[in-house]
Amino acid sequence: MSQPYMFEKPLGLRDTLPQAEQEISRLEMIFQRELQRWGYDFIKTPALEYAETIGRASAISDNRLFKFLDAEGHPVVLRPDMTTPIARIAASSLREEPLPLRLAYTADLYRSQRKEGGHPSEFEQTGAELIGDATPYADVEVISLMMSLLEKSGLASVRLAVGHVGFVNAFFYDIVKDKEIVKHLRNLLYNKNDVGFHEYVTSLDLPNDVAKQLNKFVDSRRMNNEETLTYLESLVSGSASPVQSYYRNIMELIHLLKLDHLEDQIDLDITLVPHLSYYTGFVFQGFGGNLGFPVASGGRYDDLLAKFNRPCPATGFGIRLDRLLSAIDIPAGKPASKKCAVIYNRENAGIAMQFAAEEREKGRAVVLQHADGIDNSETFEQQFEAVNYFLDRTGIGE
Amino acid sequence: MSQPYMFEKPLGLRDTLPQAEQEISRLEMIFQRELQRWGYDFIKTPALEYAETIGRASAISDNRLFKFLDAEGHPVVLRPDMTTPIARIAASSLREEPLPLRLAYTADLYRSQRKEGGHPSEFEQTGAELIGDATPYADVEVISLMMSLLEKSGLASVRLAVGHVGFVNAFFYDIVKDKEIVKHLRNLLYNKNDVGFHEYVTSLDLPNDVAKQLNKFVDSRRMNNEETLTYLESLVSGSASPVQSYYRNIMELIHLLKLDHLEDQIDLDITLVPHLSYYTGFVFQGFGGNLGFPVASGGRYDDLLAKFNRPCPATGFGIRLDRLLSAIDIPAGKPASKKCAVIYNRENAGIAMQFAAEEREKGRAVVLQHADGIDNSETFEQQFEAVNYFLDRTGIGE
Repeated sequence: MSQPYMFEKPLGLRDTLPQAEQEISRLEMIFQRELQRWGYDFIKTPALEYAETIGRASAISDNRLFKFLDAEGHPVVLRPDMTTPIARIAASSLREEPLPLRLAYTADLYRSQRKEGGHPSEFEQTGAELIGDATPYADVEVISLMMSLLEKSGLASVRLAVGHVGFVNAFFYDIVKDKEIVKHLRNLLYNKNDVGFHEYVTSLDLPNDVAKQLNKFVDSRRMNNEETLTYLESLVSGSASPVQSYYRNIMELIHLLKLDHLEDQIDLDITLVPHLSYYTGFVFQGFGGNLGFPVASGGRYDDLLAKFNRPCPATGFGIRLDRLLSAIDIPAGKPASKKCAVIYNRENAGIAMQFAAEEREKGRAVVLQHADGIDNSETFEQQFEAVNYFLDRTGIGE
Repeated sequence: MSQPYMFEKPLGLRDTLPQAEQEISRLEMIFQRELQRWGYDFIKTPALEYAETIGRASAISDNRLFKFLDAEGHPVVLRPDMTTPIARIAASSLREEPLPLRLAYTADLYRSQRKEGGHPSEFEQTGAELIGDATPYADVEVISLMMSLLEKSGLASVRLAVGHVGFVNAFFYDIVKDKEIVKHLRNLLYNKNDVGFHEYVTSLDLPNDVAKQLNKFVDSRRMNNEETLTYLESLVSGSASPVQSYYRNIMELIHLLKLDHLEDQIDLDITLVPHLSYYTGFVFQGFGGNLGFPVASGGRYDDLLAKFNRPCPATGFGIRLDRLLSAIDIPAGKPASKKCAVIYNRENAGIAMQFAAEEREKGRAVVLQHADGIDNSETFEQQFEAVNYFLDRTGIGE
């Protein structure tokens, strides 16, 4: 076995050791319980999917996919997201189920990394998809559910940025009447490249008032919620559908978030554009702790199901467990789970086994260990909050 | 998107729909709680590992590996087992931890299939590894733990077949003095090809009494425990180490299994040879329900850690969750988790949200659904054990 490789993992991959795994497991259980209480059913999909279907529909760029040929020579990918596999299932195995469908998952996702020290190539995500409901009530449900999960995880200062890519697309198209320009502008928003945005607008040689409108739009990023709402109202007055109808949806969402007592945690940001190209309506990102980037994100994707021959509106979100864990303050020096040890010899094997079984039935964590199997008693025993010795030599047997 | 592919998964892969996923989740939780009570710490490893290290050490044949080149051009595999990645961690990140180590996992494993309708290419396994303890007390612990998990899962008629590949290898070598012949004989045992075994023995042209000994060995498969013990005693009388010392280990394990009240569920089968070539001592398989093949298997692998530069004895097991689920009798027509629905309109959004939140806090599963988002009221409402309507038009708003 070649030495340099022996303990290494491929680029961007890592082990999760007991203490971190314990924290992740705690989050998984909180999320599972809460998602079930909101009526979401968990499902699981394979790690490998065909590149031509899931790989393409997932909207993850090709150089981020783990892609190879399976035993039959078909190109396959390690699933880069779960929304697309769930869309496949909603359009096939669950086609006869009544709508709306509420589905949830916890799964590892895979996105290839090209350099060291960057993002992980494999990460765990918990998410929910609400399929078949086009109303803003569905959007407020998934937003409210995501906030609830983040709150219950122990994340401090949970906040939510909300935008609407349908509004952005429609508003830009109304002004510039060119899909390629809209795409370029949207991409500059995604990269939060405001300087580049202003330069590009200048380069387009648009009428002065049109350029001004575009520049003001990108600057709205720094407005508070009240200013944004006033600005949006001024934008749509006199404007035609679909900008008008998207605006009404935004107003309705704000109304519902207020009813749900979430308005103080919301940052309305109409310039918000996430990377996943399948979003069509509301988009949102969850923040918290001291982390500068989102721990969760989601949005409405009304066109994805049609790619699987079942045209159907849908909305959902995913929470990155690795990011969430790094954003949660875990008390320093927190001990691992409390365990006790039972150390025994041959003569006391029966009674030690019996004692351990009884303690376990009471819910205690008990390591049962024959004395001969211990490498170093001192370091071994230090791991436990209590040690019970069954080492009497007068027992049966010898 | 090419039509024929749209809803298909690559060969041997499948989705887990809500009802099955709920059962699997139940098993995962039972196992996690029980493993923690026995003092085992959960860890997680990446889905991808280097082919030169984990791929090779896993002892899974090359044509069963999902193998491809990563972004850097290194051959990687989807993990075919968890014992080898855990050995890697025990020899690196956990090198300074006191021995014995007790580690557990629940993970998806990957073994490529070449034809339709056969075994799955991806399956979930829960397992435990006890690293650093060479005594039979460690073997009885992992056996007893595995039996306990199977009992708690609800599996009926749990039974355990136990053998010892160290004994088989040593006994064969004592007689034939040729490692290649030993390997061939062991392979015939693995395939349970008794006819082939007898034919091969005949073809070897051995002295008559030697051939007779080998033939009697393979026939011992049909002996009951008492007959096997008498037969083993006759074999080792006058025999030298290591056969003698392996025999003493077998006798000690039987003694300990009796102390642990497990003797009635044990089938001693000295011809038992599992496929994984890294086993060196005790080997065992767990059975139950009406399933003709094992739901769990394990054994001692004292040479594996040395491949990662940390020579160290170890023993452990894995339980196949897919097989276990098919072996457990789940009451027919068992309903999915009980849920109630709250159906509301705009005027009652606030009060409906409030009601759903309160019911969820009490632990109930509540679907909150705006009436406008429902496709077909009748089929939608049939899913719930109760439906609460908040559809009064005299509320605020309209």
